[in-house]
Parts: sequence; structure tokens; C-alpha cells
Amino acid sequence: MDIKIQPIKESKISQVDFNDLKFGSVFSDHMFVCDYVDGKWQNPSIVPYGPITLDPSAKIFHYGQSIFEGMKAYKDTEGNILLFRPLDNCKRLNISAKRMVIPEIPEDLFMKGLKELLKVDNAWIPTNEGSSLYIRPFMFATGEGFHASPADEYKLIICTAPSGAYFSGKVTVLIEEKYARSANGGVGFAKAGGNYAAQFYPTQLAIDKGYNQVVWTDDNTHEYIEEAGAMNVFIRINDTLITSPTSDRILDGITRKSILQLAEDNKIPFEVRKITVKEVVEAAKSGELKEMFGAGTAAVISPIAGFGYKETDYDLPEIENSYASIFKEKLLNIQYNRGEDIHNWSVKV
Amino acid sequence: MDIKIQPIKESKISQVDFNDLKFGSVFSDHMFVCDYVDGKWQNPSIVPYGPITLDPSAKIFHYGQSIFEGMKAYKDTEGNILLFRPLDNCKRLNISAKRMVIPEIPEDLFMKGLKELLKVDNAWIPTNEGSSLYIRPFMFATGEGFHASPADEYKLIICTAPSGAYFSGKVTVLIEEKYARSANGGVGFAKAGGNYAAQFYPTQLAIDKGYNQVVWTDDNTHEYIEEAGAMNVFIRINDTLITSPTSDRILDGITRKSILQLAEDNKIPFEVRKITVKEVVEAAKSGELKEMFGAGTAAVISPIAGFGYKETDYDLPEIENSYASIFKEKLLNIQYNRGEDIHNWSVKV
Ligand SMILES: Cc1ncc(COP(=O)(O)O)c(C=O)c1O
Ligand SMILES: Cc1ncc(COP(=O)(O)O)c(C=O)c1O
Repeated sequence: MDIKIQPIKESKISQVDFNDLKFGSVFSDHMFVCDYVDGKWQNPSIVPYGPITLDPSAKIFHYGQSIFEGMKAYKDTEGNILLFRPLDNCKRLNISAKRMVIPEIPEDLFMKGLKELLKVDNAWIPTNEGSSLYIRPFMFATGEGFHASPADEYKLIICTAPSGAYFSGKVTVLIEEKYARSANGGVGFAKAGGNYAAQFYPTQLAIDKGYNQVVWTDDNTHEYIEEAGAMNVFIRINDTLITSPTSDRILDGITRKSILQLAEDNKIPFEVRKITVKEVVEAAKSGELKEMFGAGTAAVISPIAGFGYKETDYDLPEIENSYASIFKEKLLNIQYNRGEDIHNWSVKV
Repeated sequence: MDIKIQPIKESKISQVDFNDLKFGSVFSDHMFVCDYVDGKWQNPSIVPYGPITLDPSAKIFHYGQSIFEGMKAYKDTEGNILLFRPLDNCKRLNISAKRMVIPEIPEDLFMKGLKELLKVDNAWIPTNEGSSLYIRPFMFATGEGFHASPADEYKLIICTAPSGAYFSGKVTVLIEEKYARSANGGVGFAKAGGNYAAQFYPTQLAIDKGYNQVVWTDDNTHEYIEEAGAMNVFIRINDTLITSPTSDRILDGITRKSILQLAEDNKIPFEVRKITVKEVVEAAKSGELKEMFGAGTAAVISPIAGFGYKETDYDLPEIENSYASIFKEKLLNIQYNRGEDIHNWSVKV
């Protein structure tokens, strides 16, 4: 399928201060749009970033039938545009699509649209350290009617936003004892829109207590560590790195699986197993808890400085050569095309 | 606050066949709109039903920050417009709002907007038996940005749709063994958009097997009956009516609580308690299971003709003077202002 390109009349780029980028709040000139109508994806096009017009009965407004992805584009010193494992995002988008009864998008169409968009908005990819172009593909129900059933029409849009760090400063987390992010047999493994709004209230309560994020536990016993709002969670006890197995409640993070691969490549001992809050608290008390960090595309690798649990705060030590710093360096080196990339994760556009 | 009214130039009502109304697929001439901007709800107005324009980064598209309500307006033989316990819908909208970190709407503003809208679109309220004006209030995040946090701007819209029955024909249900609708500590008790899209896939699987709806069970053991997609569930064993207690996983249905009150008023024995699938299956086998029915605004009272569980189908008997028929008649009599209304549930506009 050919992608029609309708370029913007005048770029907005001169209005943007690339030295002072927040996360996801300034948008590039163009977006990729594709419509699912009459049973097929059609009219792929790149158009100026701009408003979407929908009927008030479009199902996105009523039934939360929407999914998204989060990716980044990087630029190396030679000006090449690079993506990190982009096909994995496309595959996960389709996994989310299936669970939310949204028609899957053909991989080649998605990849072509994405790459064309990045070429058109090449100038928007930041080159300063710590910044990148955040990419937000999303799909939602445009089909109409108040019947609580899947829509017959959908839209895929890919927008991009030159972005700085997701977190500013140290990250502390609250281990959740009451609220839950997802159910067994639910949609927690999908990047479904509704999963995120469901986290706002408990996260707000945690922020009011002085934490940045909630670490979710299982909804039934609250005894097991699952993941954070937009990151998978890693725990280092002595020299062993531990992370929870994925399940239908937990997002299968691309950063997470890359870290596990890097741990294997670099002979860092790791375990993928259920981990109880009790174990973490006891390790914190005994001094065996060396590190905790979150891992995700937006947050990259975010060391956790401390956590709260049952009205008690536990600080984590600041250590040299932390696993977090090792993995972060290795990941960024691959993402910015500065280091060896034995798994060919980096993809040139 | 004054409500500005901008009337439609030419009504679409002559295009509508009121004798052949589906559910929620034809929309009245006007809608009520109110914006949350600069920390307060403002600009309440009634405008022609028509498109909404949003930025692609509006949080509704990404994080499912949306809630809704479902109500009905009825017309009695004298032409009065009637609502059924409308303040309860407004209160529940605000309960949902709080959980989804959407600013609550003042009750008087909501009620005033709703009543004005019904007066303006009075002609759209069907008078033929079995039809009514379905009312859909909904609130969603219009504020912008890719940061996964609550939006700073919102919209409340009330649309209406002259509607016929939600179900056509007999209703059969599948008791769910694998998928779940909501988590402990989650948002199941809220009318959050995402709860509904999450049900589409398991419901589709049930429809493919020949059932109309899923009856949800708890996500942990799948042993307890909770509710159906858009209805609370009642079970009659011998002469006792049983329904599950509400919880943070179950919507506190207005039809449900009205039925419980009517049962009390009419000395029909009832129990609000947890009920296991096992108990229902055994009662079906022994013949003690007399009725099952769903109760909700859209579906009114829908007798369940049979259910499936673990690859076995159980038929329910067709009985005379069923509780379902008794409650349905009493409810409709109140809603259409044809019978005694000792609790003053019916509200004249
Ligand atoms: C709930 C959740 N967990 C984990 C992650 C991390 O996944 P990834 O590394 O693929 O970005 C994300 C963000 O995408 C997320 O939303
Ligand atoms: C999940 C769910 N349960 C039950 C109901 C019934 O509630 P009500 O009787 O207030 O319409 C609804 C519909 O509103 C619903 O969406």
C-alpha cells in the first residue's frame, strides 16, 4: 500500500527549545494515520499533526476500546535514525489488539508508516544526550453506537514527541497493599488505555504521601511484587537480579526482556521468579537488598532510591557499578549505535 | 450557571422510524456539553448533536480516562417526561469520577443540563410500548500529553437516543471460568470505559459458542457469581431470590437495588449473599433453580433462558408469574407513571 504524504505548510520546529524538553508534551510536525473501514486497514497517510474529529457516539468515548505502544527513535553521530526492536512493539500492539477486539495491523504497513514518518520528521529527533524522539502509536474505536460491543471502525495513529527524561530526580515507590492494576484473566498484559486510568487514583494517593510511583502487587493476596505503572521492576538481592515472570496481569516489557538477555550475555546471575514483598522487606532490613530499578521505554532504567510498605520507608544504598548503571549504559550504547549490538536490536531507518 | 441553548436549524426527527428502533444507534437533535477548564466546570450549553474535535494527544485516546452513565426518559399518557431515580445516576457518575481522577460534576448542574436537554428534545422521547429515550452522560479526558497521569481538562456530554430493546429474543449466558472483568482493588464498581472493552473478547468467545452474555465470576477462584456485562444477576432458588453483594468489583446497579426494595415491599423472600456457581448448577440439576434474570437500565429485566458451564448447558424452566415478570411490570408501571410509586423514584421533568 502506498502512503500518501501531505506535508505541513510551515514547520513548528523553530518554536521548540531542544535543550529543555519535557516528556511527551511537544509534538512533531506530522503524524501517520490509517483507517480501518469496511473490514480492512486503508488510506495510510502522513498528514500534519492536527485535530481528530469524531462522532459523540464513537466507542472510544464510551467503552475504552483503545490500545497504544511506546517506542523511541534515536540519532547516532552520523545522523542515522535508529529504532530499538521496533517489530516487538508492533507484535505487542497486535497482541493488545486481539485482547481488545481491535483488528490487527499488518506488520509491514505499520513498519512502513513508522519509517516514512521518521524520515519526514527527521529534524525532530533530538541529538542532545538524554533526549530522544518518543513515538506513540495508538489504535482506537471510531465506530459509532451505544451498544456495548466492539466497534466496526478504527483508527491507527502514530505521533511523535521529542522528549527528555520521564522522571526528574530520584524515584521512590510505594508497594501497594489495597488497590490493584489488573485481574487474573483480565487485560493487564495488554497496553489497553483503561489499565492506565485505573492506576491514576492509587498513584495519586502514593504521590500525596511523597512517592513517585506505585509498585503493584497481585490483586488477590498483595504478597507478590508485579510491576510499576509504566515499568517492569527488577530487584537485586546480593548479586542476584530478580524479576517477576510475566503473566496475563503483567506487561511483557521490551526493556525487561532486553535486560534479561544482557544479564545472560554478561554472566550476571538472574532469576525470573515470583518474589514476595516479605522477601524484599527482609532483604532491605538485613542489608542484602542492593538495588531496585524500573525498566521501560519511557523511563529507560530508573534506579529506585527507596520504597514504602506498611507505613515504613526503606532506603536503598547508593552503590558503585550498580546493575542499573551497567544495563543502562549497555542499552543506551546499543540504542545510540555506539556499542556492539550482537542481537541486532538496533534497526536503521 | 445559565445554560446557553443553540438550537438545531432543521430537526432530523422525520427521518426516524419510531416503530423500528434499535438500541442506541439513532441520536436526538441536541446534546448537553460542559467543559472542565482552569479547574472548574464551565460553559454549559445545549448544542446540535455533532462532531467532537480533539488533539491526538488528548488523554482519552491513550489512557482510557473516561466514565459514563446509562439512564432512560419515559413519557406517560399525558405527555409528562419522567426519569427514574436520576440523582442516583448522578451520584454514581461522581463515584466513578473520583476513582478515575475525573473532577466531579455538581449535582444541580448535571440535573439542570439533563432536564433542559430533555425539554429541548421532548419530541424524541418514544411513546410506543417497549421503547424509551436512552440517555448517555459521559465524561472524558480532553487534556493533552503523553505522560501517564490525569488530564487537566475534561468534557461532560449528555446525548440521547430513542431506543428499543437491548436484547432481541431469548437470553442465554455463559458462566466464565477463565477470563475476568475486574480485580479486587480495581475499578469494576465504576462505570469506567475500559471495563467494557475488557469484556469484548471473552464475550465474543461466548457469542461464538451461541450465548448472548458472559456471567462474570471472581477473578481469583471463578467460584462465585458476580454480574453480567451490563446487568446485575438475580437467581431464584425455590422461592428465594438471591443476588451477590456489591463490592469493588461489581457495579451497584440502580435496577438491582430497586428490585431488592420491591422484593421487600412485596414480601418476596430475598438474600443478598455470595452465591457459588456450584450451588446454581446443583439447583439446576435438582430442579430447585426456578429463574435467573439480568437487571439493568438498558436491559430492564431480562429473563435468562439457560446457562452454560464447563461445556454443559442448563435450561431454565418457563414459569408463570415469574419474579422477573412481576418485577418488570412493577418497575415499568413506576417508570411510565402508571402505578403506585411509594418511594418517589419517578421524577417529573
Ligand atoms: C505497565 C507497563 N509495564 C512495563 C512497561 C515497560 O515496557 P517496555 O520496556 O516495552 O517499554 C510499560 C511501558 O511500556 C508499561 O506500560
Ligand atoms: C457492569 C454493569 N452492571 C450492572 C449494570 C446495571 O446497572 P443499572 O441498573 O444502574 O443500569 C450495568 C449497567 O448500567 C453495568 O454496566
